[in-house]
Amino acid sequence: MTVASPAVLTELLQDIVAPDPKWLKQARAHLDSLTKPRGSLGRLEDIAARMFAIRNGDLSVPLKRAVYVFAADHGIVAEGVSAYPKEVTRQMVLNFLAIGAAINVLANLHQAELTVVDVGVDANFEQLPRLLHKKVRRGSRNMLHGDAMTEDELNSALQVGFELASAAHEQQQTLIAIGEMGIGNTTSASVITAVLTHQPAATVTGKGTGLDQSARDRKISVVEAVIGKHFALRSGISASDPIEILRRVGGLEIAAMTGMVLGAARHGIAAIADGFISTAAATLAYAINPTVKEYLFAGHRSDEPGHRFLLEYLGLDPILDLEMRLGEGTGAVLAMPIIESALEVYKQMATFASAGISGALT
Amino acid sequence: MTVASPAVLTELLQDIVAPDPKWLKQARAHLDSLTKPRGSLGRLEDIAARMFAIRNGDLSVPLKRAVYVFAADHGIVAEGVSAYPKEVTRQMVLNFLAIGAAINVLANLHQAELTVVDVGVDANFEQLPRLLHKKVRRGSRNMLHGDAMTEDELNSALQVGFELASAAHEQQQTLIAIGEMGIGNTTSASVITAVLTHQPAATVTGKGTGLDQSARDRKISVVEAVIGKHFALRSGISASDPIEILRRVGGLEIAAMTGMVLGAARHGIAAIADGFISTAAATLAYAINPTVKEYLFAGHRSDEPGHRFLLEYLGLDPILDLEMRLGEGTGAVLAMPIIESALEVYKQMATFASAGISGALT
Repeated sequence: MTVASPAVLTELLQDIVAPDPKWLKQARAHLDSLTKPRGSLGRLEDIAARMFAIRNGDLSVPLKRAVYVFAADHGIVAEGVSAYPKEVTRQMVLNFLAIGAAINVLANLHQAELTVVDVGVDANFEQLPRLLHKKVRRGSRNMLHGDAMTEDELNSALQVGFELASAAHEQQQTLIAIGEMGIGNTTSASVITAVLTHQPAATVTGKGTGLDQSARDRKISVVEAVIGKHFALRSGISASDPIEILRRVGGLEIAAMTGMVLGAARHGIAAIADGFISTAAATLAYAINPTVKEYLFAGHRSDEPGHRFLLEYLGLDPILDLEMRLGEGTGAVLAMPIIESALEVYKQMATFASAGISGALT
Repeated sequence: MTVASPAVLTELLQDIVAPDPKWLKQARAHLDSLTKPRGSLGRLEDIAARMFAIRNGDLSVPLKRAVYVFAADHGIVAEGVSAYPKEVTRQMVLNFLAIGAAINVLANLHQAELTVVDVGVDANFEQLPRLLHKKVRRGSRNMLHGDAMTEDELNSALQVGFELASAAHEQQQTLIAIGEMGIGNTTSASVITAVLTHQPAATVTGKGTGLDQSARDRKISVVEAVIGKHFALRSGISASDPIEILRRVGGLEIAAMTGMVLGAARHGIAAIADGFISTAAATLAYAINPTVKEYLFAGHRSDEPGHRFLLEYLGLDPILDLEMRLGEGTGAVLAMPIIESALEVYKQMATFASAGISGALT
């Protein structure tokens, strides 16, 4: 593992520049010239206009799509917050490599190159050639009893994502989905959501992979206890300190995703947030630097109850709303054909002038 | 044009059989064995299970996709209900044939074979080879002053759609999107919606292709006047007589779509309703024979305000909700990659047993 440089966070915050608003205006004018009633393609038009701006007014090159799945374990699992045992993180990584998981099927179908990143699974994966080895630590610490990460660990995990964004840029990827796998990580996302959006723990804590009501009640108590430990008034931590929130109650995969969202924005790559945990990471990136939102799409609205509060905080409308709650980047990849459709319509439709079609009567 | 046989409607109502419920049960069991928390793929699981049942438990053959766009003019346009002149119906048919419209782009991208059907455009199209010539009449009659269609015209239009479903079956198409083009047809759909769902005209009448508020108010008055003429208590017509509703206030393309929805169900073809007008036709088909719902998907929720009432009446959740209001089958075709994703996940994912993954703790 590369030793985290103290300059990483500073670097993350530099060089993120919003797309020039002139492209949005030009895109709107083009969309209004196409053979359809003005605005009648709804959100497809917004998506096309935003992508036109992100791509600096050039949509001639087809999108190069990829999906990154960051895997890590969580010390908080010791508190009984998940319906599945911790071992499932390791087992699912093996399933990704064996091409057996939902994200394998969807990435293949929608032509997104899949990269599986071990940023903190509590397992020895040294012998696996197709896994990207970026383990910072075998699982984050139990945030009920201490900070989930040290400063060095946080910096290293952020850097994993940030450097992957640079590598994605070098590979000319232009649309990336950001997903995760980590038993216990909805608990982290619930704490982050409660702290950022000021919602009660019970409102933003769901059943995760499938808790029953009594187990969910227990999870809510754990979320409340974690919030009490780290964010009581005396702690001096506030929602205005996203990096410290991430360090205390995040996870290694969440930190890596935050780094990748920041890095994608820095390189002008459009990034699609997936569900609750991926969006928690994207929201922290947004809290660190609001300009990342200009490069961010919300792939879908998860069935996890906290997700909508993050989307509202971000001010992003999800492209899909299919009651999914799987993670792995599945909802983000599923939005790719919609985004592609928006771009193809933008590029290929005839204009009123070229087709000789009458305009509106008024 | 084939002369409509009096036996057509009788035939439409026969031979529509729901899929065997055993397939749904078998599909649920398979979905629960896949390497994901139970139910975590949300609506994708429902879609996969329904398609498994529609295909009689055999998803091995890839879906053969098609989209049908039925075009017709409407006499009611004389009342000033549309933002665009009537000529745009003809012009847009030419645009479809010139591959310049949104549906051309989306059908091509999502591998749906496009068929454009003239069922009643007020234009001479005899010289156009790539158009399917099924014109019943050059536009429906102005329903403000009389019935939109005679019985023969209605039967002929229904038969156009019904026979196309048979042809689709012969071509082994298994997933068809049903769209339309017809200046003035949201007015028909608004009347149908008001009558079927007992909503006030103002609630179910939108801006169509782009009316301003005063023009929309005028359209609402026209919808109210049409309802008053045809569905006042003394008329003896009720929502329980969908065929007579269709004849009086439908359109030729709406009738053809109703016939195609009935025919698709009869042949076990999955049909995707598009927006407001397409769904009005599907809802009439459902009112004629509720079993059609078993073969029907709602591609998206249109931005037209009446659409949600039709979806509620049908009891169908739309797959997409992208604020589109274009018609042409665009929202239905855009749902195809989601449906395909559901099937591929169903077919390709590993099971807990095959992947050696631990089950839930409880």
